[in-house]
Amino acid sequence: MKFYDCKTAPSPRRVRIFLAEKGIDVETVQVDLGSGEQFSDEFRKVNPDCVVPALELDDGSCISEVLAICQYIEDLNPEPPLLGHSPEDRARVSMWNGKVEQLGLMAMMDAFRNASKGLVDRALPGPESYAQIPELAERGRNRVVQFFYRLNDQLEGNAFVAGDAYSIADISALVLVDFAGWIKISIPDDASHLKRWYGEVSKRPSAAA
Amino acid sequence: MKFYDCKTAPSPRRVRIFLAEKGIDVETVQVDLGSGEQFSDEFRKVNPDCVVPALELDDGSCISEVLAICQYIEDLNPEPPLLGHSPEDRARVSMWNGKVEQLGLMAMMDAFRNASKGLVDRALPGPESYAQIPELAERGRNRVVQFFYRLNDQLEGNAFVAGDAYSIADISALVLVDFAGWIKISIPDDASHLKRWYGEVSKRPSAAA
Repeated sequence: MKFYDCKTAPSPRRVRIFLAEKGIDVETVQVDLGSGEQFSDEFRKVNPDCVVPALELDDGSCISEVLAICQYIEDLNPEPPLLGHSPEDRARVSMWNGKVEQLGLMAMMDAFRNASKGLVDRALPGPESYAQIPELAERGRNRVVQFFYRLNDQLEGNAFVAGDAYSIADISALVLVDFAGWIKISIPDDASHLKRWYGEVSKRPSAAA
Repeated sequence: MKFYDCKTAPSPRRVRIFLAEKGIDVETVQVDLGSGEQFSDEFRKVNPDCVVPALELDDGSCISEVLAICQYIEDLNPEPPLLGHSPEDRARVSMWNGKVEQLGLMAMMDAFRNASKGLVDRALPGPESYAQIPELAERGRNRVVQFFYRLNDQLEGNAFVAGDAYSIADISALVLVDFAGWIKISIPDDASHLKRWYGEVSKRPSAAA
């Protein structure tokens, strides 16, 4: 296996933390998103959608999408389970990871990519150019804060995002909170459960990944 | 189990087709999105994010998110596998389902919700109101057509979206193509592989779900 990473980017960090929690080392190739290496002919052969993370399997085929990569790693290395254990647990983990992606990370991407001076005409990742939409940046900021309160409600009665065990949903939410810090969105003072959780998951050694 | 559905909406249709392919009947409750039943106090207890599909489990807890629901159904009813079989297959299915969601269905949602006269201030699903952004509707239309060509390339060498077996990725892509028809986006004439595939998957009895 070969892992195509970018050390500074949020999406591949989700895979890095996942690997660290599993205690797995994978041969890693850094793709320099800053200089546009994801658009090179060489990388397009790995992932024609020009995004990291991507995982080259031993048969030479390539998998992109964070969840697909993590599921593959979990299938080969079941312990500790980060995608849930029982069918009910697995459903809750999948649901919460999906909510963090759709309601949190997508909103955060809108907020960041539509306002960053370095990303004019790069409002979306991928091979095509899209102009920034300032209203989308503003909407994204509001949605991220709103989702922080949604997470706070969930964490009031739960140790972790998807229940009582650490899972990929915590990884995605941790990356969301840290990514939000890039544009100076922090956990609201009155979101005490989210703060408690963030303090805990940030202390895990995997958070350094 | 109890399935919260809306017969006219694309997202729950993905679950309906999944259930039909499995040959499973589940007690179903129709939620009338047109009259705003998803915002009722009763439905908020089922899913505080106010969207269908949702699945109430026998323990009374509730799962939302299409993928989480389908994974739960597959865990309980493994045959026929619609999420892939080997780890490599499962990774490809997850990747393609993710691409259809992110690059296809999300773009289609942007195109539809930001232009529909009936959805002013409902540019996003969920409990909060968001104003329509006309540029987002336009961008969404362009992205859907572009993704049709992406699917066409993939289907040139593959019987189905994720390879040689029918999967949830086909279900998601079928729902995308039919949803696009709502705003008069059809498969481009020169996307012959996508047309061939669409003809085939549309003929399966499950497509009527």
